[in-house]
Amino acid sequence: MSIYKTLREQAFEANMEIPQRNLAIYTWGNVSAFDQDAGVFAIKPSGVKYEKLKPEDIVVLDLEGKIVEGKLKPSSDTGTHLILYQDFISRASGVQAPIKGICHTHSTYAVSFAQARQGIPVYGTTHADHGACEIPCTEIMGEEAVKGDYEIETGKLIVETFNKQNINPFHMPMILVAGHGPFTWGENASQSVYNAAVLEEVCKMAQLTRSLDPNAKTLPQYIINKHWERKHGPNAYYGQK
Amino acid sequence: MSIYKTLREQAFEANMEIPQRNLAIYTWGNVSAFDQDAGVFAIKPSGVKYEKLKPEDIVVLDLEGKIVEGKLKPSSDTGTHLILYQDFISRASGVQAPIKGICHTHSTYAVSFAQARQGIPVYGTTHADHGACEIPCTEIMGEEAVKGDYEIETGKLIVETFNKQNINPFHMPMILVAGHGPFTWGENASQSVYNAAVLEEVCKMAQLTRSLDPNAKTLPQYIINKHWERKHGPNAYYGQK
Amino acid sequence: MSIYKTLREQAFEANMEIPQRNLAIYTWGNVSAFDQDAGVFAIKPSGVKYEKLKPEDIVVLDLEGKIVEGKLKPSSDTGTHLILYQDFISRASGVQAPIKGICHTHSTYAVSFAQARQGIPVYGTTHADHGACEIPCTEIMGEEAVKGDYEIETGKLIVETFNKQNINPFHMPMILVAGHGPFTWGENASQSVYNAAVLEEVCKMAQLTRSLDPNAKTLPQYIINKHWERKHGPNAYYGQK
Amino acid sequence: MSIYKTLREQAFEANMEIPQRNLAIYTWGNVSAFDQDAGVFAIKPSGVKYEKLKPEDIVVLDLEGKIVEGKLKPSSDTGTHLILYQDFISRASGVQAPIKGICHTHSTYAVSFAQARQGIPVYGTTHADHGACEIPCTEIMGEEAVKGDYEIETGKLIVETFNKQNINPFHMPMILVAGHGPFTWGENASQSVYNAAVLEEVCKMAQLTRSLDPNAKTLPQYIINKHWERKHGPNAYYGQK
Repeated sequence: MSIYKTLREQAFEANMEIPQRNLAIYTWGNVSAFDQDAGVFAIKPSGVKYEKLKPEDIVVLDLEGKIVEGKLKPSSDTGTHLILYQDFISRASGVQAPIKGICHTHSTYAVSFAQARQGIPVYGTTHADHGACEIPCTEIMGEEAVKGDYEIETGKLIVETFNKQNINPFHMPMILVAGHGPFTWGENASQSVYNAAVLEEVCKMAQLTRSLDPNAKTLPQYIINKHWERKHGPNAYYGQK
Repeated sequence: MSIYKTLREQAFEANMEIPQRNLAIYTWGNVSAFDQDAGVFAIKPSGVKYEKLKPEDIVVLDLEGKIVEGKLKPSSDTGTHLILYQDFISRASGVQAPIKGICHTHSTYAVSFAQARQGIPVYGTTHADHGACEIPCTEIMGEEAVKGDYEIETGKLIVETFNKQNINPFHMPMILVAGHGPFTWGENASQSVYNAAVLEEVCKMAQLTRSLDPNAKTLPQYIINKHWERKHGPNAYYGQK
Repeated sequence: MSIYKTLREQAFEANMEIPQRNLAIYTWGNVSAFDQDAGVFAIKPSGVKYEKLKPEDIVVLDLEGKIVEGKLKPSSDTGTHLILYQDFISRASGVQAPIKGICHTHSTYAVSFAQARQGIPVYGTTHADHGACEIPCTEIMGEEAVKGDYEIETGKLIVETFNKQNINPFHMPMILVAGHGPFTWGENASQSVYNAAVLEEVCKMAQLTRSLDPNAKTLPQYIINKHWERKHGPNAYYGQK
Repeated sequence: MSIYKTLREQAFEANMEIPQRNLAIYTWGNVSAFDQDAGVFAIKPSGVKYEKLKPEDIVVLDLEGKIVEGKLKPSSDTGTHLILYQDFISRASGVQAPIKGICHTHSTYAVSFAQARQGIPVYGTTHADHGACEIPCTEIMGEEAVKGDYEIETGKLIVETFNKQNINPFHMPMILVAGHGPFTWGENASQSVYNAAVLEEVCKMAQLTRSLDPNAKTLPQYIINKHWERKHGPNAYYGQK
């Protein structure tokens, strides 16, 4: 009997959304679901095709990376998820972190910006509805880090980028790892996939905008703020809450 | 018992066409259906996913924005629809306005032109079949308007653009709001979605044309007129009417 | 009882392939099937949506444009089909013309080249497998022709382009009408839609090739000839014949 | 009774993946499955549409190109497959070659790079996960070779390109034939189609990256090596093996 049945099922459902929303082909991509009270997260096993994935294949690990449930090897990107959850807890400083899911994909347009090593400027309200600043892109990882514990170092590079660019990941749920691809997060595993789908769409729109005008202007800050506040501010009036 | 059952169902069916025709993902986009005699319009509730939307969720409002039927909060873009219906009635000056439906999407190519803050020149007959001039794009909204009643101001900006550019919205059923995205309309709710799908296709064709020739010429006016008249003029001979 | 039941069914099936192969949306596009012995062709009715189209809606006309069977108005592009069949018969000079079907679509990439008023150079073997020269594009139609019998004039413009560019339409089954879109043909109605799908794919490949190298070279003539001959020459060895 | 029933079925299943993964339309493309012990390979018949293809239509040939089973004509590209299998055996020098399947498609983005006559630089980890160097593109085939045994010469051109560019095809399972399109291979027929799908995705990402930055940098060699080794090196830790 699994004591993390619900967490595994959340992770399973969210992973299955990756191919459903065309965010990756074959085995590429992975999603995890996090339970801060239990101190564990559930993640896709490595190299298993989505059409063969079952809820019982999901692997549960603690925050030191030790497997606590599951017979398969976890995603090779597990180390990156782990560092991010540790950082989110630390930023929440004593209270529950508002992030309970992380998603990594190889979606086409997001990867293209990552390969061009460019962040995505706020060209329109579709972007501002989901984050109030440029979507950041890390620097290319240095040789020493790559030759060290690569996936852990990827997580550290992301955290370092939050800090350097003065970004609060609770307000900007997406990042591009240069030369690699996107990581996104959210209040649960499904929401992290939602943000991956939004990122892909925003990247496609930005690519086309740039192609229409290589010097396209970003949205004035007062419109960015308006759209962000309308959905996420203290007086948000979007949705049914 | 709903007294606006038919209007709600028209609005419901038209809203469901948005995801079916790939004009937006998740909850993005909204359509309204208008009954000028009753002085009300029916619109999508705010933030409800298409896969969960039911006809009884549709909200009915009068032209002062007061809810007359429905338990949910209406679309956050309701104010824009309201201003447009008021303008259409005023332009029809005493007779029935020929517009009974409005659609707002975040379709990829239309948003890209809106983000590049460019109207769409008449490059071909696909465009001319649906409108006899450039598809207009508004200016970026000023700070004061954004900080005022934002959605009402968006409607006013659209009306102002009709007037400044001397456009008759009964002959050009589409506009781009700069930095945001498209609004389209039609003789009923379903036709407003048809125009949103046409706009997306025309934008994609224009984007590709521009990429093949950055100085692509527009169609001569006599071909634009021929195609517009063939479908919409007094001697139109397209279709079975 | 229809005496052209088979011809109508061929036209119906071929028309239904247009939306199935994503070559047009809504009512756009039309296909005809030709019976040279009977001197008639069967064509889509004007403005009828594909999802509502039935075999009995197909209209049969003779080569003077007179309806010989069917209750609906034929496609507004009927005049263009008529001129092309007349030209094909005349080119075949006394024997059966090898063309029994014509297709018109508004497929995205083909329309984009038509809007850019550019023919498609032979960049690769996918193109050469289906035609041994540049896919031609007409000039923009003159004002007098547009104000005359427009669809008849469109047919004449196509024939004029064959002649000016010294193209044998039995060897090059596709053309772009500048500012409008593609017409394609084949040994039967279904084959004319096949050529419309090939054209769309070849246009997309050409657009991307041009984007990778604005000065992309065309294939050497000896490779063009090899691929054309392999499929269509006297010693063709492609397929099971 | 077929003695190559399993081999034929492998070839059939792999061929059917071409339309399923949108790697070609109509009859375009072909896959073969190889049995080195028996000295035969099974391949798609020429010009048969995927929707009509049956396992018993698959043709089995020996390494001299003689049909040993099957009633239909084999793919017109059979000669190219044959030369590649001969080369793979020769490179394996006495042991089993690690390649048992070859795939040829006309997938859109891969063909576009082939038409632009450009290899694909390693812009990101999606590429490096599947090959540790630029994906090669051959030169345009010379006139004499084209006029000789064309498909055999295509195979020879590929082998010549491996040698000139010092590429080990067991480590780089993809190549573009200039002006034509891609050939890919793998440890079985299905894996050769996997590599065709990967190539198409990597080409699309490269095309978009180039469009965002015409001077986009390739990934540092230490990251390329890390990703290749993570999946294919002696200490590979991706997947469940």
